[in-house]
Amino acid sequence: MMLHAMLIKGTFQDSVTLMLLSRDLSAAPGVNRVSVMMGTPANKDMYRETGLWHASLSEATPNDLCVVVDSDAQEASTAAAIAAEVKERLAELARGRRKAGYATARSWRRARALLPEANIALISIAGHYAAEPTRRALEDGCHVMLFSDNVSVEDELELKNLARSKGLLLMGPDCGTSIVAAAPLAFANRIPAGTISIVGASGSGIQELGSQIAGLGGGIAHALGLGGRDLSERIGGISALTALDLVARDAASRVVVFLSKPPAAAVKARILDALQAIGKPAVALFQGERPARRDIGRVHLARTLDEAAALAVELARIDAQVTALPRVAGRGICGLYAGGTLATEAALLLAETLDLAPDTAHADGYLLRADGHRIIDLGDDAYTRSRPHPMIDPGLRNDMIQALAGEPAIGVLLLDVVLGYGAHSDPAGEVARAVNALQAARGECAPLVVIATLTGTAEDPQDRDAQVAALEQAGIVIAASARAAVLLATQAVLEPNQNDMETPALLRARPAVVNVGLRGFADDLHANGVQVVHQQWEPAAGGDERLQRLISLLQ
Amino acid sequence: MMLHAMLIKGTFQDSVTLMLLSRDLSAAPGVNRVSVMMGTPANKDMYRETGLWHASLSEATPNDLCVVVDSDAQEASTAAAIAAEVKERLAELARGRRKAGYATARSWRRARALLPEANIALISIAGHYAAEPTRRALEDGCHVMLFSDNVSVEDELELKNLARSKGLLLMGPDCGTSIVAAAPLAFANRIPAGTISIVGASGSGIQELGSQIAGLGGGIAHALGLGGRDLSERIGGISALTALDLVARDAASRVVVFLSKPPAAAVKARILDALQAIGKPAVALFQGERPARRDIGRVHLARTLDEAAALAVELARIDAQVTALPRVAGRGICGLYAGGTLATEAALLLAETLDLAPDTAHADGYLLRADGHRIIDLGDDAYTRSRPHPMIDPGLRNDMIQALAGEPAIGVLLLDVVLGYGAHSDPAGEVARAVNALQAARGECAPLVVIATLTGTAEDPQDRDAQVAALEQAGIVIAASARAAVLLATQAVLEPNQNDMETPALLRARPAVVNVGLRGFADDLHANGVQVVHQQWEPAAGGDERLQRLISLLQ
Repeated sequence: MMLHAMLIKGTFQDSVTLMLLSRDLSAAPGVNRVSVMMGTPANKDMYRETGLWHASLSEATPNDLCVVVDSDAQEASTAAAIAAEVKERLAELARGRRKAGYATARSWRRARALLPEANIALISIAGHYAAEPTRRALEDGCHVMLFSDNVSVEDELELKNLARSKGLLLMGPDCGTSIVAAAPLAFANRIPAGTISIVGASGSGIQELGSQIAGLGGGIAHALGLGGRDLSERIGGISALTALDLVARDAASRVVVFLSKPPAAAVKARILDALQAIGKPAVALFQGERPARRDIGRVHLARTLDEAAALAVELARIDAQVTALPRVAGRGICGLYAGGTLATEAALLLAETLDLAPDTAHADGYLLRADGHRIIDLGDDAYTRSRPHPMIDPGLRNDMIQALAGEPAIGVLLLDVVLGYGAHSDPAGEVARAVNALQAARGECAPLVVIATLTGTAEDPQDRDAQVAALEQAGIVIAASARAAVLLATQAVLEPNQNDMETPALLRARPAVVNVGLRGFADDLHANGVQVVHQQWEPAAGGDERLQRLISLLQ
Repeated sequence: MMLHAMLIKGTFQDSVTLMLLSRDLSAAPGVNRVSVMMGTPANKDMYRETGLWHASLSEATPNDLCVVVDSDAQEASTAAAIAAEVKERLAELARGRRKAGYATARSWRRARALLPEANIALISIAGHYAAEPTRRALEDGCHVMLFSDNVSVEDELELKNLARSKGLLLMGPDCGTSIVAAAPLAFANRIPAGTISIVGASGSGIQELGSQIAGLGGGIAHALGLGGRDLSERIGGISALTALDLVARDAASRVVVFLSKPPAAAVKARILDALQAIGKPAVALFQGERPARRDIGRVHLARTLDEAAALAVELARIDAQVTALPRVAGRGICGLYAGGTLATEAALLLAETLDLAPDTAHADGYLLRADGHRIIDLGDDAYTRSRPHPMIDPGLRNDMIQALAGEPAIGVLLLDVVLGYGAHSDPAGEVARAVNALQAARGECAPLVVIATLTGTAEDPQDRDAQVAALEQAGIVIAASARAAVLLATQAVLEPNQNDMETPALLRARPAVVNVGLRGFADDLHANGVQVVHQQWEPAAGGDERLQRLISLLQ
């Protein structure tokens, strides 16, 4: 084994470009390994640790490109050939970049001059250097997505406090993905536009959630990354709370998904309070937790990514349904069920969601009777002595439906319609007639939302399609399951979100971005029609940190 | 108000027919209410309680039809007209029944003679009388579906012990629905044929589960009802255990769903043991419970009907996938993940399913390292110093994949493939090449199942369809989510069910049924091509119970 090394002075390149270059060149014939890195102190340490140290590296500065070749060949010509290849590749890259179609600047000040409307800085330089440009961007009024990792927690706290004091969002450090108003920041998928917004402390988690949502036919408004440490006790969820405030005020965000590892207890309580206060349906996934209670008012706790995505898509669908319904004045929910198991499920879920005690005595078939709500199982003995089961004879339920004319405090009526052998030949028609009569009696002053589940298949003797049509013609909303019916019912009776808030500027229109660091991110933004200027960052003052700070104040 | 009453002697009719008749006639002009019931002691009490008692009812026997008319009209002619209408309706029914296309018998013995191959008795007479014919059917070697309610718990226990001693299944009492080899028993939906079998203590719950399964594109093999009391401490789940044993031995049942209210603790433990012992993927829903642990070996606990149905359909799909895969010899699962959140979810779910402790130290990115299984996050710092993240540079993971050539104890490899901006331009191609090389190195003696999740959308720059095709060409199974991947992996490594068991006769072919009670159930069976004889049951010996028992021994 023989080590050869060469320096290419004053040619700064980003670390990912050089890592991929190293990988490609390592495959060249006659070569064991090639490592191309900038001559930063950290990289020089790495050469020492990995046995690739060469004396000539000692004079390298952070602006010098180090090329180290481990080869069986004794001749220095191998290293020279590799170095020539490095130069050729870099020249090729530079040619490509000149055709990039967006401007490049050597300083933050120049970048801002080229793109005065910039409102986001996307920073992906080595973490060791990242705090300074982040501070600069925040002080200049830009939100920041900080892709870099290896930023100290002290710097993170200071920068997040600075961001908060200026009403700005700092996504990261170590934030792998965000999508702001359809602009893909770093590792982002192309996800159809929709009404779901994701706020999360995990890059691949946000990507998976977004992909699953797309796969289920849903879409997203925004995805805001936080970085993995934001929910720690030390940082206290500063960026999470800012992000939740942003989506709370955003008209396009109708459903919110929150994703993180289980946060510190105090932080978690703050997050749940904030989610509840948003006044929009929300899903929270604290990865690894096994929540005993799943539905808490508007917040629904999921246990896995697929569950969180499915729930978000369902809530978005329900939100669209609820928006199309009349606003109810009465806040009571009344369930009149023919099927005991459906009644039980509705009662249990409603009790959990609204924090009520289920009725355990079950007198007169009541499975829930609290706070103006009631769920009744009409298959209970109390209703079936001397008359057939309500699945056969809908008469009693029809009477009870019509009696709701005198109960304006009931705003939502839950029903089940059961098809199949043995059941009534036209249960939907019976329900539709009773509901039509009820709605006519209540009039426009006492709006009532009627939600039904339909148990039955396409092959059942009653003709499922015709049953669906009969319900829909009576203005009855059909829920896909007892659970969906309860989600719909609670959304219908909970106080709506204040819709008079102004959408924050960050989320209102496609952002304009200054990209500092990995060039590829600027290419992707440009390809998506986002205005971008690339700041070709390199360690100032040959990597001297005191001098750097001084220079940054002048730039 | 004026009460008129008439008796129609010796004309037994079932209660549902009479209740519906009563309802229809109550709508006649000049009439407040009509009640038509058989003159049983219980019905006579009901007349007294509801203020409809008339002196002439005192002589009515259980075989006499009582017609009571509450009318404002003074004339007895109103009652006479109603009675005439009753007779006309009953004659009409009788005419319809003669055209029914199946035989009717007056006794159990005669019914059996007409249908010697009968293997199920469907009994729906008044509960007070139901124990006797149930016992008779069991003693005669027939399984019984006992629709009737109001059977005493003492009778239930005695009958279930009798059934068990004869290797028979007693569904019910108060069993509303069952589907045995496509024969709809009582309140049943028409559900496409499939590989899921439902065992449950709730009629409407079974109906809803079956409908949801059909709606999700799944199908069922059988649905076996138990009646609401089977899981009580007193009964101890006798029928549940028989039913689970039946589906365990049934070749068509590949996935089992169990549904009940939370049973007594000892009974629940027995049920869970039985479900686990079946050796098939299973879902259990104990309605109202909030299980902390969700995945226990092959048994998965659901919280709601929609969740149970979706899980069953997913398990059935996975079962079909696993069946098509090579049987692995090595039982170890190895996960090599680029995305940390996906790795974490896989590790947590695998730990829960297989009862392992997750790795909390996370050294070298290990999220699980126990019992021959390991899940590694290759985005961990341990792997990203001096080389790009594995989402950009798949080299390290490719090396680790190929190293599995020397590890035959690993039978399943879990991977993630992440698309989107920033990621590698052909991640699936990289994985496919590495997996192809690995499979070639392992050869046929060390089969390996490779399962990948694909994070990304149809609009991502990598062309999702082409990525899917590349994975599939390498024989890699694509799972819909990290959770699905773990379900697949555990099904692949768990010991398979003993497939050499013989399918029980009850489930092997469409049954032949003796229907005792509600005539409509026989009509539905006949309409579905099921051989059926209707036993036109009526209380023997004028309702005298001692005499009845004597007669039943002779019949």
